[in-house]
Amino acid sequence: MPRLITLAGAQTGPIQRADSRARTLERLIALLESAARQGAQLVVFPELALTTFFPRWFIPEAAELDAWFEREMPNPGCQRLFDRARELGVGFYLGYAELTPEGRRFNSAITVGPDGRILAKYRKVHLPGSVEPRPGSRFQQLEKRYFEYGDLGFPAFRGPAEWGGPVMGMLICNDRRWPEAWRCYGLQGVELMVMGYNSAAYDPNGGETESADLRRFHSTLAVQANAYMNATWAVSVAKAGNEDGSGLIGGSVIVSPDGLVVAEARTLEDEVILAECDLDACRQGKEKMFNFAAHRRPEHYRRIVEQVGAVPPG
Amino acid sequence: MPRLITLAGAQTGPIQRADSRARTLERLIALLESAARQGAQLVVFPELALTTFFPRWFIPEAAELDAWFEREMPNPGCQRLFDRARELGVGFYLGYAELTPEGRRFNSAITVGPDGRILAKYRKVHLPGSVEPRPGSRFQQLEKRYFEYGDLGFPAFRGPAEWGGPVMGMLICNDRRWPEAWRCYGLQGVELMVMGYNSAAYDPNGGETESADLRRFHSTLAVQANAYMNATWAVSVAKAGNEDGSGLIGGSVIVSPDGLVVAEARTLEDEVILAECDLDACRQGKEKMFNFAAHRRPEHYRRIVEQVGAVPPG
Repeated sequence: MPRLITLAGAQTGPIQRADSRARTLERLIALLESAARQGAQLVVFPELALTTFFPRWFIPEAAELDAWFEREMPNPGCQRLFDRARELGVGFYLGYAELTPEGRRFNSAITVGPDGRILAKYRKVHLPGSVEPRPGSRFQQLEKRYFEYGDLGFPAFRGPAEWGGPVMGMLICNDRRWPEAWRCYGLQGVELMVMGYNSAAYDPNGGETESADLRRFHSTLAVQANAYMNATWAVSVAKAGNEDGSGLIGGSVIVSPDGLVVAEARTLEDEVILAECDLDACRQGKEKMFNFAAHRRPEHYRRIVEQVGAVPPG
Repeated sequence: MPRLITLAGAQTGPIQRADSRARTLERLIALLESAARQGAQLVVFPELALTTFFPRWFIPEAAELDAWFEREMPNPGCQRLFDRARELGVGFYLGYAELTPEGRRFNSAITVGPDGRILAKYRKVHLPGSVEPRPGSRFQQLEKRYFEYGDLGFPAFRGPAEWGGPVMGMLICNDRRWPEAWRCYGLQGVELMVMGYNSAAYDPNGGETESADLRRFHSTLAVQANAYMNATWAVSVAKAGNEDGSGLIGGSVIVSPDGLVVAEARTLEDEVILAECDLDACRQGKEKMFNFAAHRRPEHYRRIVEQVGAVPPG
């Protein structure tokens, strides 16, 4: 008997700095309702889904910075999303900026069950960008300034019985390019990876770099290969389009344990992608090609934990 | 100034059990000469390039088994290939079955420089298959029976100045699907990965499994993503076609540090693929997205070395 779950990605178009929270919530709820009408049981929203991608600005004042953060979850600024999801019996993954009672800041995500309870929290480990602003640049990437490195590791958790009880894992944005992160979940038998992202389509300061097409290719390639190499389903969901003058690649996908794209966003706007997925499709990979117990040789992998940067041979 | 090297993959069609070594050497030398005429400086041959893929048979007699192995490298059974390569000033990667003076057996590969000297040896770490033959099956996969696990780890080495002095790494077949192996080389700053393989196109015993197309997709996907995630060139070369009644996928590729396929085999026969590659194209990835020193968080990766098989959450 297959273990079926209908998964959705709720790609959002840009969320401008000037947009009200109420307007943003309306859009997220509209996406949730659209996904639910199509039978979705779990809806994946992007990284920092409640706000613009504010790390693109240097914000020297703590009070101004804190305005972008959520102090608890849920809270009055997003309660309606939680309420509507519970009414519909739909779970969701939501990325947001987290400010703890102790004043610590993380780039975080939660997965909420169909009963409205938070199943698990994740804090982004692979923060890109820099601590210090680049002088003279209109746009920054200051995640290393505004967030601490995630301190929860890569803890897998079980989804509810209504979803087939999948072993689940969360990532955020740049994490999806790091095979170490996927493998830590793979080593917990993960069957369903969920992640949101905000990835630049070009250098917003006008430098010459990769094309948006190449960046979308990289985003999808990393998800396809890591899903395959860990024999897991994956839902990877973008904030897309021109956000406050800075382009985001879009390219949300749902990927099978064979690494095949089974659903893919076609726009840079609010858009639902959807697929009915058999969790037991992970078994072939986990029992044969990627039977870790039979084939891994950790005695040769020590370099992965014993050094950080690259050290070329003499 | 770009650091250019012209790389070739020398895909071979099947090498049948009945083929003489002299005939096989002629084919390898013809491929080498064709690649050299096109300007190749380094030619990558497949895994077990001197013989049929003999682990598909149960061979109970040690003397019969030993006939498939090389006792030293080079040896009279392949000296002509070494001589011709040195004459042409072309280096090569060659996979072969290694029998040591102590009687140990490995699935090995060497890289030979343009001066005919062996630059480095690699012994396959990720052996697929089984120790015990499957009763009643016409075809076996007995690599775990015939070979010891590679005991050299993943040692990067420097290619010669004529090649631009690249940091190089070798893998063999199934190794290419394991991100741990690539990352161990990535952590040594690898710029050029070379590997050969024999991958089944279908279950030769008639079971229902993945199609040959899906298997080729997996082979290429793993190389593309791991090349991208480690910002390295990669040459991945097949033995192809119907070998002694068992199909091999082919699909040899040369892949850029962006994960793009820049050359790809079109046949299941002897075929040279070729690309002129700028080693400095690795720099963008190594200095930005995959600047390991800036972005890796090994304190969260310990599971990769502390457990072998998957352990699901409670």
